[in-house]
Amino acid sequence: MVNETQHTCSASSSSKSDGGSSSGSESSKDSSRCSTPVLDADRHERLREKMRRRQDSGDKWFSLEFFPPRTANAAVNLISRFDRMGAGGPLFIDVTWHPAGDPGSDKETSSMIIANTAVNYCGLETILHMTCCNQTKDEITGHLQKAKRLGLKNIMALRGDPVGEEWEEEVDGFNYAIDLVKHIRNEFDDYFDICVAGYPKGHPEAESYEADLKHLKEKVFAGADFIITQLFFRSETFLKFMKDCQAIGITCPIIPGIFPIQGYHSLRQLVKLSKLEVPQEIKDVIEPIKDNDAAIRNYGVELAVSMCRELLDSGVVHGLHFYTLNREVATTEVLKRLGIWTEDPRRPLPWAVSAHPKRRVEDVRPIFWASRPKSYIYRTQEWDDFPNGRWGNSSSPAFGELKDYYLFYLKSKSPREELLKMWGEELTGEESVFEVFTCYITGEPNKNGHKVTCMPWNDDPLATETNLLKEQLEKVNRRGILTINSQPNINGKPSTDPIVGWGPSGGYVFQKAYLEFFTSSEIVTALLKVLKKYELRVNYHIVNVKGQNITNAPDLQPNAVTWGIFPGREIIQPTVVDPVSFLSWKDEAFALWIEQWAKLYEEESPSRMIIQYIHDNYYLVNLVDNDFPLENCLWQVVDDTFELLN
Amino acid sequence: MVNETQHTCSASSSSKSDGGSSSGSESSKDSSRCSTPVLDADRHERLREKMRRRQDSGDKWFSLEFFPPRTANAAVNLISRFDRMGAGGPLFIDVTWHPAGDPGSDKETSSMIIANTAVNYCGLETILHMTCCNQTKDEITGHLQKAKRLGLKNIMALRGDPVGEEWEEEVDGFNYAIDLVKHIRNEFDDYFDICVAGYPKGHPEAESYEADLKHLKEKVFAGADFIITQLFFRSETFLKFMKDCQAIGITCPIIPGIFPIQGYHSLRQLVKLSKLEVPQEIKDVIEPIKDNDAAIRNYGVELAVSMCRELLDSGVVHGLHFYTLNREVATTEVLKRLGIWTEDPRRPLPWAVSAHPKRRVEDVRPIFWASRPKSYIYRTQEWDDFPNGRWGNSSSPAFGELKDYYLFYLKSKSPREELLKMWGEELTGEESVFEVFTCYITGEPNKNGHKVTCMPWNDDPLATETNLLKEQLEKVNRRGILTINSQPNINGKPSTDPIVGWGPSGGYVFQKAYLEFFTSSEIVTALLKVLKKYELRVNYHIVNVKGQNITNAPDLQPNAVTWGIFPGREIIQPTVVDPVSFLSWKDEAFALWIEQWAKLYEEESPSRMIIQYIHDNYYLVNLVDNDFPLENCLWQVVDDTFELLN
Repeated sequence: MVNETQHTCSASSSSKSDGGSSSGSESSKDSSRCSTPVLDADRHERLREKMRRRQDSGDKWFSLEFFPPRTANAAVNLISRFDRMGAGGPLFIDVTWHPAGDPGSDKETSSMIIANTAVNYCGLETILHMTCCNQTKDEITGHLQKAKRLGLKNIMALRGDPVGEEWEEEVDGFNYAIDLVKHIRNEFDDYFDICVAGYPKGHPEAESYEADLKHLKEKVFAGADFIITQLFFRSETFLKFMKDCQAIGITCPIIPGIFPIQGYHSLRQLVKLSKLEVPQEIKDVIEPIKDNDAAIRNYGVELAVSMCRELLDSGVVHGLHFYTLNREVATTEVLKRLGIWTEDPRRPLPWAVSAHPKRRVEDVRPIFWASRPKSYIYRTQEWDDFPNGRWGNSSSPAFGELKDYYLFYLKSKSPREELLKMWGEELTGEESVFEVFTCYITGEPNKNGHKVTCMPWNDDPLATETNLLKEQLEKVNRRGILTINSQPNINGKPSTDPIVGWGPSGGYVFQKAYLEFFTSSEIVTALLKVLKKYELRVNYHIVNVKGQNITNAPDLQPNAVTWGIFPGREIIQPTVVDPVSFLSWKDEAFALWIEQWAKLYEEESPSRMIIQYIHDNYYLVNLVDNDFPLENCLWQVVDDTFELLN
Repeated sequence: MVNETQHTCSASSSSKSDGGSSSGSESSKDSSRCSTPVLDADRHERLREKMRRRQDSGDKWFSLEFFPPRTANAAVNLISRFDRMGAGGPLFIDVTWHPAGDPGSDKETSSMIIANTAVNYCGLETILHMTCCNQTKDEITGHLQKAKRLGLKNIMALRGDPVGEEWEEEVDGFNYAIDLVKHIRNEFDDYFDICVAGYPKGHPEAESYEADLKHLKEKVFAGADFIITQLFFRSETFLKFMKDCQAIGITCPIIPGIFPIQGYHSLRQLVKLSKLEVPQEIKDVIEPIKDNDAAIRNYGVELAVSMCRELLDSGVVHGLHFYTLNREVATTEVLKRLGIWTEDPRRPLPWAVSAHPKRRVEDVRPIFWASRPKSYIYRTQEWDDFPNGRWGNSSSPAFGELKDYYLFYLKSKSPREELLKMWGEELTGEESVFEVFTCYITGEPNKNGHKVTCMPWNDDPLATETNLLKEQLEKVNRRGILTINSQPNINGKPSTDPIVGWGPSGGYVFQKAYLEFFTSSEIVTALLKVLKKYELRVNYHIVNVKGQNITNAPDLQPNAVTWGIFPGREIIQPTVVDPVSFLSWKDEAFALWIEQWAKLYEEESPSRMIIQYIHDNYYLVNLVDNDFPLENCLWQVVDDTFELLN
């Protein structure tokens, strides 16, 4: 995303040479500048502006369509897919509206909640589909208000399929997509970007192709911002459609909908639903191989790639919209072969941003949630404003409780049996817990031959950056310093560094060494003695589940542990160790022992009691080495502690 | 001041080991922490808290009393004296109230305005004296409201001398200091810290010493926070007084007033006014040398030093209050010999802070006013809040106009004749202007043998830091790059560095190289060509008096050019290059050519026309080298420019 960082504010305000006697002293600062450094213009632009900017710059883009899953487990998997496919850099994703699936409800499988998760927790620009047929004005307004409240900014306005055969137009009702477009503009002014559907072959129910084009023009003139088309099988179909649209005065972006054929049955079903006809030359290829899924998919990929190439080469197509059918492989392969899947290792900030508009200024977070960003977003969702520039400035309210470990997007992706294999079917003592932590760090299989690929505090394998510390981490975990978060010190590496870099290029990033772990009270006692020697250099916070809190931090000020210096910008300090937030994190971190680990075992079982014992008696410790230009002293602190113990 | 940085917030909030189950998630962040990093606790504490903290820590302190001057020129000199004596670290200064001198007016010599200047422009904790005798309640309330509005926080409540001999108590009027104390507490609650006067020998009009002590106790119980005593000649006098005060229940701080004898006449006058008797042993020494000022002063210093030592050694005296009579030498010498004059080279921030309470969070300023901090404070005095953490966050209004170059504290300290000697009685061309700039940089005398110790943009000789760049600056000024502001790049020097350091110890400070200068349009044309080569590395803003503005800054974001990383704190970035502020600064910087320089010459004179030509045709340029870890490239930019011109 970083390479798209452009000059959001500049269009209106900065001028290469604004002649005349403009006097800066006249203008209010508020009115003349962005409220926050434009680290990533994408965070500040509306979808239609992003499209325009890509069109101007000539950067081709793609978008991905998904439908809401049927089960909670499938929803968890879909969210993981959002994270993986989000890495390829889609301009947006969209989530279809299933009138039969209670689409506006709070169910974890509803269209509304899936779109909400994509925006808020996966940081994806998202379009929520919405149909209007067979719904009252109040229902529709309610859905739109909810969408707005959740931070959704884009609506695909559709008619939807009438229920029953004897459907008739209602007077003053919502009979066509255009009614929904008008309603959105009436009730929500310019808040939403609105997309409408285009039919390259004409809508199957339209009187004629020409009449359908006219309807499309009316939808656009009623307030739609861009058009996504129904799927089609030949590039000429789309290019002709586009030309015809332009001929009658449609000037907004028109995005071709691409359907990579992925299987015989899905093709047949889609074709039936959309009342399209599959060209004979395609049928001829597919029919003979209809039972060979891999062959069909390969053919589908070939076909999609060559059609997309024709579209992009035409010069009039800037973006491609993919009907993914919630599958990853075919679409990803098409995108990679087209060269528009751009997995940019650079990050605008060291943590994954949310796409909720009220979070667009957010650029500081406590380090504690580094591996649980979705939990952080959830627990701060009620905040009205977000730390921008400095954590201490924030006037946000307290963290929300995270009682609900069952929020579907925070669920472990691994089922219970797998977790037991990783974390131990039967624990024999604290040492077996040490071993689990150690195996997670080393990547080596445990004594039963299973690799430990996640932990209650880390749903993913070790981060590349943490790998830098692997050797030391292994050593200390073996001895009961159970690490859950760490970062090395960095003294001015280029912001483009593939491992620790973030932010725009041309900058320098810095870190203070950080180490966070659970450990026994015996080790804490020794550690505290050792820390006296490091009093001026190392800040520590040590807390147990009851909230007994030991710290040498002079006051409740946060300590910036990650920051970056960039050309022409103010300093960005995206990560802090914040003493106040630490106490909220402590509740969550301790609870994970019980909720994710202890509860795998029978009540009263020895294994469960071991985890319960650790939960009740261990301390959560964080250490910051303030002397970032020197060699990280935290390993020495730990060594000294063990030496004292022996 | 930095070495006094303590834990302002910690008393109430941070706890070394607060047992029990305090849950951080319960507490609002707002209520539990300071709004800004406590870089300098002094900025956040009330005077009475500062006294208490010094008493607890055992650090001895001093304060300085001044009276308002009679003429505007004397006021300018007094303000310079505030700056010089402020460097020694007084806990506060106080300004006496002269009922005959229209003390509450806006005159530059009024008590109110002198105190205002001390607080706002010199950053000194200040007590304003106020007398109540012969004044109406409304007048007094008006004075107090004005003092509060100006940011004054401390009042010395006095009766003042009744006018005329037949003064009588008014019923319900302000007859005694206690009436004023009560009035302040009634009308302004706890806003002001209140000081009252104590008389070690008893007030001359009091019935008895004991009766006077009783009155003093009443004043304290009515709401005074501490006591400053009338002068005295023997330490025993004060120590007995203090003991007597404590015996009757006065527990607030009592600060001895010290009067270093500085001359025969001033002593006589003061003694007459205060109705004190000079001890015979002092008279015996002074009378024989009464015409030898130096001898008397030396004796006075000896006497004061030995009395102060006795006081400090008593263990009950923590601070000393000096009646300076607006003179520097004697008091400074006493303080230095006592070892309590602490000229701390360390600075809480790289610029001089203001002591106005509404500016206490201020920690970012544009670099442009580096040499004119008083002008910056003046032009932002109407702001309601101040940038804290990030400049871009500020929602402050525009800069005030600086039409009034005659504001007494912005006046040049040098008279016209001296300026002409420095800057040239007669200019023969732009080159003579180049020479003035060059001499200012080198410190060498000009061709008429006069050193150039100030410039319109710099009222003081070259800063130590700028000295680091002296050689290059000389070279470029000779060729018409007329520098007015610059800083070298710094890549992580200790915050205790005697030249570039600032902020608490244990930190690291950084700078991007900065260069600001006036130059001709011919040089600007070449410079712009050269800058193309440095496009990604150097940010520039180039503007002429008409406001024609050329920049490569991507938007209106400020560029942080000075920042510091400290243990246990967020990043501090006290100096930015801000494109919006630059246009306000431009107006000021160009106007100084005319107001301070051109106007030294007759209208229509060639000298005046040369300055006018420069004002009308030159550009003001600023350059930032963003690559702070590499060697400063700005000199190369200038060299390349001249090479291109040749």
